[in-house]
Amino acid sequence: MTARIVNFNPGPAALPLQVLEQVRDEFLNFRGSGMSIAEISHRSALFEQVLNDAIERVVRLLKLPGDFKVLFLQGGASTQFVMIPMNLIPEGSSADYINTGTWATKAIKEVEILGKPHKVIASSKDRDFRYIPKDFQVTPGAAYLHFTSNNTIKGTQWATFPKAGDVPLVSDMSSDILSRPFDPKPFGLIYAGAQKNLGPAGVTIVIIREDMLAREPANLPTMFRYTTHAEKNSLYNTPPCIAIYMVQLVLKWVEETIGGLEAMEKINREKAGLLYGYMDSTDFYKGTADVDSRSMMNVTFRLPTEDLEKKFVAEAQKEKLGGLKGHRSVGGCRASLYNSISKEAVESLIAFMKDFAAKNG
Amino acid sequence: MTARIVNFNPGPAALPLQVLEQVRDEFLNFRGSGMSIAEISHRSALFEQVLNDAIERVVRLLKLPGDFKVLFLQGGASTQFVMIPMNLIPEGSSADYINTGTWATKAIKEVEILGKPHKVIASSKDRDFRYIPKDFQVTPGAAYLHFTSNNTIKGTQWATFPKAGDVPLVSDMSSDILSRPFDPKPFGLIYAGAQKNLGPAGVTIVIIREDMLAREPANLPTMFRYTTHAEKNSLYNTPPCIAIYMVQLVLKWVEETIGGLEAMEKINREKAGLLYGYMDSTDFYKGTADVDSRSMMNVTFRLPTEDLEKKFVAEAQKEKLGGLKGHRSVGGCRASLYNSISKEAVESLIAFMKDFAAKNG
Repeated sequence: MTARIVNFNPGPAALPLQVLEQVRDEFLNFRGSGMSIAEISHRSALFEQVLNDAIERVVRLLKLPGDFKVLFLQGGASTQFVMIPMNLIPEGSSADYINTGTWATKAIKEVEILGKPHKVIASSKDRDFRYIPKDFQVTPGAAYLHFTSNNTIKGTQWATFPKAGDVPLVSDMSSDILSRPFDPKPFGLIYAGAQKNLGPAGVTIVIIREDMLAREPANLPTMFRYTTHAEKNSLYNTPPCIAIYMVQLVLKWVEETIGGLEAMEKINREKAGLLYGYMDSTDFYKGTADVDSRSMMNVTFRLPTEDLEKKFVAEAQKEKLGGLKGHRSVGGCRASLYNSISKEAVESLIAFMKDFAAKNG
Repeated sequence: MTARIVNFNPGPAALPLQVLEQVRDEFLNFRGSGMSIAEISHRSALFEQVLNDAIERVVRLLKLPGDFKVLFLQGGASTQFVMIPMNLIPEGSSADYINTGTWATKAIKEVEILGKPHKVIASSKDRDFRYIPKDFQVTPGAAYLHFTSNNTIKGTQWATFPKAGDVPLVSDMSSDILSRPFDPKPFGLIYAGAQKNLGPAGVTIVIIREDMLAREPANLPTMFRYTTHAEKNSLYNTPPCIAIYMVQLVLKWVEETIGGLEAMEKINREKAGLLYGYMDSTDFYKGTADVDSRSMMNVTFRLPTEDLEKKFVAEAQKEKLGGLKGHRSVGGCRASLYNSISKEAVESLIAFMKDFAAKNG
């Protein structure tokens, strides 16, 4: 497959080649059904196997206790920004939020639009979200504490998750779910758009603790209630079948080819370590995040000038290293090192960076 | 492709073989990008071409005037059941609904949950939704008149759309969009889950007239506002890229291989005519819908006994004729004759039906 490029896109992002090959190979006849995965009924035994296998793999990989439900929904993390406060802030209660960048800001905007009580207990906006806040007080009795575990645009990540005592954690893990193991017990809800570490765009995983389901207020529209989807195993209405199927294949790859989240984290630490290590050894590339807040998933950096950044992205593309442009809102460069990016891919990026710095430094 | 079956599934449903083959053939390297369609950025020129081509084809196929926007959203028709009354019933106004079965009933349930003024001006519930109501008064000044153009479960279809004067029509066309031409001008909004005539599950097309966008009340959550998606050309957040791409290929097939909606309707009329014609010539198979309300898309019928129905579905499956079981809520049998089902497929079904009736009659 020499025609394929190394794809550092921030999402939709690179997927494991073996997953793509399997989708291609069985696309006209899914497991002997004589139909494409795009054509089979979501109520068929064949599809339910796919769905339930995906759920079981999430449970095993994240070591979820028995009181968590795994849902596959539509609408992206952006829809969760509003469904969470709609469902999980009961009358008379208030939720805590920590603002670490673009996505957290959007989550906070939705709780504001709903007019639900909430408090932003910490923010790193004072320094353009270059760091993860350390000093904050969780409000005793808060409905939940919402935070974004990894900030795709700003290149920061929570190294360890906030301690909130009895207050359930709610986290947008869109850009680092499955990248490392963690203790799920303090969480009331975890959500993630699939298009970074989980699969293609078009499905959002929601992991919800059962006691959170009981908080639902009366008279919510059917599709906006977590109970609707939990009671029907994500089959209340037609789910995004192809996306769920591809997520199932990616989960299988993490579990069986990589060997689980401990092994995945080791690879991810090694990849990020190589790239940050090289960047720290030169003045040509400068990381934008504080060292202790750096993301293993999204490495954001600047070159000496914007012209050099443009040239860097364009020349890298010619060398089959794609997707290195920073988010349009912040500029600069970004290499997203999601699970599917191999150590070899990072090494080839570093080799290119060295060469580019030598020629342009 | 002898391994493929003839797939009469009601949705997700059969797709044109040439579409599936193209997806397969370019799945590892989308149009020279070196990436899968599942891996490319939704903000890349390559993806925007796909999206815009899909939009332009919808405009051409449906002959939409310039004041219509074509959106690709997530969440299925079920999410539209609530977004429509949220967005399109201004303060002091009330909407009309016609109830023709399961899906219309669900749409009415959501306007009830929202507590928005509405009136069910006609219903065919008195005879288990076997017919399309003919006598009804549209309320002058109603916000809109909502109806389901084709009823997948009950096997009925509006032969001609209701006349509502100045009241904008709003229609769930999930199961018959693109099956025939119609005049779009009386419509304020048309919506359709893709998984019948348009593509795979996971994307919903919403066609909205610009004056409808102006009705939006203050303080709606961002993702539930049509304006959010209209202003960003369906790219406010990451869209379901694979599903949109496959819809684009299906639209291309309808436009270029079939030759447009007039040609499509001719084929669909011929297919339905053959099957209903045969059914009417025997006492063994009995259609469940009134003759003047019959659907060209979903042909629902009963056999003399439930045991024979089970046997019919099982033996058909052995002959590679799949998906003939009726909806679990109504029983019986159903053959869905969406656009991708060829005349030859219907002829092979009829041949099987004749043989089965001869052996079991």
